[in-house]
Amino acid sequence: MKRIITVSRQFGSGGRSIAKEVAKMLGYKYYDEELVKQVAEETGFAEKFVAEEGEYAPGKSSLSYAFSTQGMPGVMNGLSASDFLWSSQRNFILRIADEEPCVIVGRCADAILSDRNDVLNVFIHADDNYRADRIVRLYGETDVSPYKRLEVKDKRRKVNYNHFTGRKWGDARNYDLCLDSAKLGERNCAAIIVSLAKNL
Amino acid sequence: MKRIITVSRQFGSGGRSIAKEVAKMLGYKYYDEELVKQVAEETGFAEKFVAEEGEYAPGKSSLSYAFSTQGMPGVMNGLSASDFLWSSQRNFILRIADEEPCVIVGRCADAILSDRNDVLNVFIHADDNYRADRIVRLYGETDVSPYKRLEVKDKRRKVNYNHFTGRKWGDARNYDLCLDSAKLGERNCAAIIVSLAKNL
Repeated sequence: MKRIITVSRQFGSGGRSIAKEVAKMLGYKYYDEELVKQVAEETGFAEKFVAEEGEYAPGKSSLSYAFSTQGMPGVMNGLSASDFLWSSQRNFILRIADEEPCVIVGRCADAILSDRNDVLNVFIHADDNYRADRIVRLYGETDVSPYKRLEVKDKRRKVNYNHFTGRKWGDARNYDLCLDSAKLGERNCAAIIVSLAKNL
Repeated sequence: MKRIITVSRQFGSGGRSIAKEVAKMLGYKYYDEELVKQVAEETGFAEKFVAEEGEYAPGKSSLSYAFSTQGMPGVMNGLSASDFLWSSQRNFILRIADEEPCVIVGRCADAILSDRNDVLNVFIHADDNYRADRIVRLYGETDVSPYKRLEVKDKRRKVNYNHFTGRKWGDARNYDLCLDSAKLGERNCAAIIVSLAKNL
């Protein structure tokens, strides 16, 4: 039995939907927006900043929305906002892993929890066409082409992961299980993860 | 239904045993030593040369055993021995894929068959301790430490793959499915592959 499932994913691959489905099937707590909300509350950062900066390398003017209306976080221990957020988010993940069984989406949770043996680490990816179609369907069109949006998001996720973990994002050897959601289908992906979580 | 399964693997990960088991369970033809034997026959290269050079970047004095007793291959079309072997092996893989359902171990078959949609591409990996134990158990001790042996073999496989395919060996995005055999167990790996091959 694996108590914790971490799901890393390429942008638009459906990794988040699969993670949500897995949590539902296993009756595990699901951490994605909830993690953002709670980390924002604990640190005093704005939710938008936690959502973006907690998983992506800094984009343009990322600090302009760092702080929510209540002002600066009380203690940053001399760290940059980005390092302080990383450290707070890391502690949060270590803590929830000790609480109840859960599925955690992204946020380098695979690397943060690498010392535990009750964790199943999953990476979900898919080809660009599948992901481009999917993000347009889910998030709508923008001025930027969907392929460019994929490239930018993936790059920022990768830089964040590589920087904070010293590992290579997307390298199969970091994960117990990597699945191509376009080729295998999202339902099959969820079923494989659930079956392994139950039987290992 | 996937008619063809390609299994790429880290040295010592048990990928080959898993592939053999999958072939048995599905009733598919299994290409590993058999591929080496047939490519050697067709090209006139020694089996040892095909086994080594067909999958690994050149090691020391790799050409010293290139040719079997019958002498130089008849036609090399002006290619180096290594490129000629690659091209012959590639044609062989394209041909067998058209014949009967099969499991092909290594030899960049995933990239060579990337235009087909009846192929399931799998990558098997495991941590160094698991693999070191396994190669000592299977192949015995040598003067070189098992960890060094893993490093050398993996590096030569990687260089060969990257050179001939233009892809990154071990990057999850090249494969439909990547499995950690140490974490998931070899039997689970085989079961997942068989189930997907049947249901996709």
